[in-house]
Amino acid sequence: MAPFFSKFFGNPSSLYKIGRIAARAIAESREVISAIIRCSPEEIIFTAGGTESDNLAIFGVANKFIDNAGDYHLITTAIEHSAVLESFKVLEGKGFQLTILPVDKYGLVNPDDLMKALTPNTILVSIMYANNEIGTIQDLGGFSKIIKNYRHIQQVDKSLHSANVGNYSSLNGSNSYSVSDKNSIYPIFHADACQAAGYLDLDIDKLGVDLLTINGSKIYGPKQIGALYKRKEIKLEPIFYGGDQERKLRPGTENVAAIIGFAEALKLVNSTRQKESKRLGKLRDYFIMELLKFPETMLNGHPTNRLPNNINVTFKRIEGESIMLKLDKEEIYVSTGSACHSMSLEPSHVILAIGQDAGDAHGSMRFTMGKSTTKAQIDKVLKILPAIVEDLRKITAINK
Amino acid sequence: MAPFFSKFFGNPSSLYKIGRIAARAIAESREVISAIIRCSPEEIIFTAGGTESDNLAIFGVANKFIDNAGDYHLITTAIEHSAVLESFKVLEGKGFQLTILPVDKYGLVNPDDLMKALTPNTILVSIMYANNEIGTIQDLGGFSKIIKNYRHIQQVDKSLHSANVGNYSSLNGSNSYSVSDKNSIYPIFHADACQAAGYLDLDIDKLGVDLLTINGSKIYGPKQIGALYKRKEIKLEPIFYGGDQERKLRPGTENVAAIIGFAEALKLVNSTRQKESKRLGKLRDYFIMELLKFPETMLNGHPTNRLPNNINVTFKRIEGESIMLKLDKEEIYVSTGSACHSMSLEPSHVILAIGQDAGDAHGSMRFTMGKSTTKAQIDKVLKILPAIVEDLRKITAINK
Repeated sequence: MAPFFSKFFGNPSSLYKIGRIAARAIAESREVISAIIRCSPEEIIFTAGGTESDNLAIFGVANKFIDNAGDYHLITTAIEHSAVLESFKVLEGKGFQLTILPVDKYGLVNPDDLMKALTPNTILVSIMYANNEIGTIQDLGGFSKIIKNYRHIQQVDKSLHSANVGNYSSLNGSNSYSVSDKNSIYPIFHADACQAAGYLDLDIDKLGVDLLTINGSKIYGPKQIGALYKRKEIKLEPIFYGGDQERKLRPGTENVAAIIGFAEALKLVNSTRQKESKRLGKLRDYFIMELLKFPETMLNGHPTNRLPNNINVTFKRIEGESIMLKLDKEEIYVSTGSACHSMSLEPSHVILAIGQDAGDAHGSMRFTMGKSTTKAQIDKVLKILPAIVEDLRKITAINK
Repeated sequence: MAPFFSKFFGNPSSLYKIGRIAARAIAESREVISAIIRCSPEEIIFTAGGTESDNLAIFGVANKFIDNAGDYHLITTAIEHSAVLESFKVLEGKGFQLTILPVDKYGLVNPDDLMKALTPNTILVSIMYANNEIGTIQDLGGFSKIIKNYRHIQQVDKSLHSANVGNYSSLNGSNSYSVSDKNSIYPIFHADACQAAGYLDLDIDKLGVDLLTINGSKIYGPKQIGALYKRKEIKLEPIFYGGDQERKLRPGTENVAAIIGFAEALKLVNSTRQKESKRLGKLRDYFIMELLKFPETMLNGHPTNRLPNNINVTFKRIEGESIMLKLDKEEIYVSTGSACHSMSLEPSHVILAIGQDAGDAHGSMRFTMGKSTTKAQIDKVLKILPAIVEDLRKITAINK
């Protein structure tokens, strides 16, 4: 990245030489990323991060229908990142019908629930690949089959109606685009894969998604850089306006250095994906096993079908923040809920969604491992933690 | 910036130590920037660049009125950057009334035009500080007085009406916020100062703006980092949704390194502003004087009231792109129009707005100087350019 902050400072949209150097570097990065997720380079839109990619996907689809919002239906899940969940709630406020699919105690979406939720007016389904708090991995390929099958039924239904009653679109009483048009690709399937990118297969054909959010900061890349994979056939509305960059879908002088760093980071995690997933998976299972020996401690998320770097447990009768502060002094950095809402006193919506009561949810705690994590570090945590938990429970008991 | 890409990689919204280090660095950067533009730190919202800041300002105000868009009025100018102009055109498409103020042959907005354009329903005025193509500097302080005076009249008018007829708001027949509410700060005054930040005074009290866009890439800072100054009293709608960062106005993990680089860049240009403006102003005047000795060559923009680093001329009967390519081979990098629309064959909307016909506009060309520009370089351009212009005119003549 470094030379693109200094020597090669050109604006990639400028036609002169230092601009062309920057443009070429972006083109190469786009190719690296598209090769890894197995799409065409022109299907990659660079954004300023996962949040923006999610918003571009969701508002990009929904805003095409905004004039008749009430006629259309959106589907997401209860455990999405707030970049997805808040966006859908804003759209619900603008009149769209919204179904928020529940999850089971492991954080898994039930395929039957998705099937039942789909309506002829559903334009968008957004389900995250792997959860940022509890690490649960969803079966995107399976959900995709359900959505594509439903699309197919809609199209057959439409062609039958066309034959019988002429213009089926007019039955909706709406002037806007009908979701059941013959060549329709609605409902569109979006997934947020920010947390998954480091450890799971990103092959978009296997995932069966039409839109996919990935970003840099979760894979040791720079912050505030992301991409949205967008299937060629899909037309989106931009979420902001200006220059012609990124096929007019994302204006603003391109973030050359960050794009380069993002592509390089993705290349690196891709090359170590299998090995690291295996290594961390073992550490995770060991850590979970030991943590569950603590009294009044529960695992959050799926026991096996979870990100190899994610451990999330609830220590009953303790505030997660209190443990966090104690561990911080030992240079052990853990999280409660999502960093994006760290100042909020509300318990995590994800922990609540898997059925934990609000009291217990306050004691939930996420340990995220990474490439530098060793068994010795895990053992250090396991050595320090019991006394902290015990001490804090005593204080809680005194306070009650 | 460098350590924040590696050693201090923490998420500033995380509560643990490496997060707090990042958060402190952001807080310090926010203070640096707010001290330079003379506002409170909490009035600075970091964004992913000038385009996003402009969009946040414009949609952030307008979207509060979107449900009754037809009742409200917006004002901008014909020579704005596309991040501003396109945003207003999108809002016009959604039903808002829009006045695009013309400019004179120098690119100046006439204060009388602004005065006449204001209506009781005007919610937002956006006028750029200095133009990115022709360098013309607007009298923001003067425009601010007009807008504030109008605001005052509206408030007096409102209180008179309130006394006589009760709830004046209801006269609008609208349920949404009335722009003439007693404590109203409408119309809000926004300015895009991206081009100005390196050379002009950014004191927001002198400029009299309520919202101000600045960014990093125009002042030797990193790309894709910007800020919007937002007067405390003003409430904006976010343009996208997610975490609680930037007072819930701009979600997404903060771009720590870029924020640090942006603040440092602004500090540096601020410290050399007067000296560099003087030095480049002299070079600019010399360059313009020599260029105008070329046959059939006109200056675009104001002869003196322009950015010290900007030279824009039209060579009649030549395509600017042809000159650009010839100069590129000599490692002299010039632009035609805006880089954001470099692939467009349309002549620049700015050059058309100052009254040049479309044919001549194709021969417009921008020379932008900077901290490394010397008189020797200018003399090199002046030595090479006449033959290029002459040759290209011959070819044009042959083709006709």
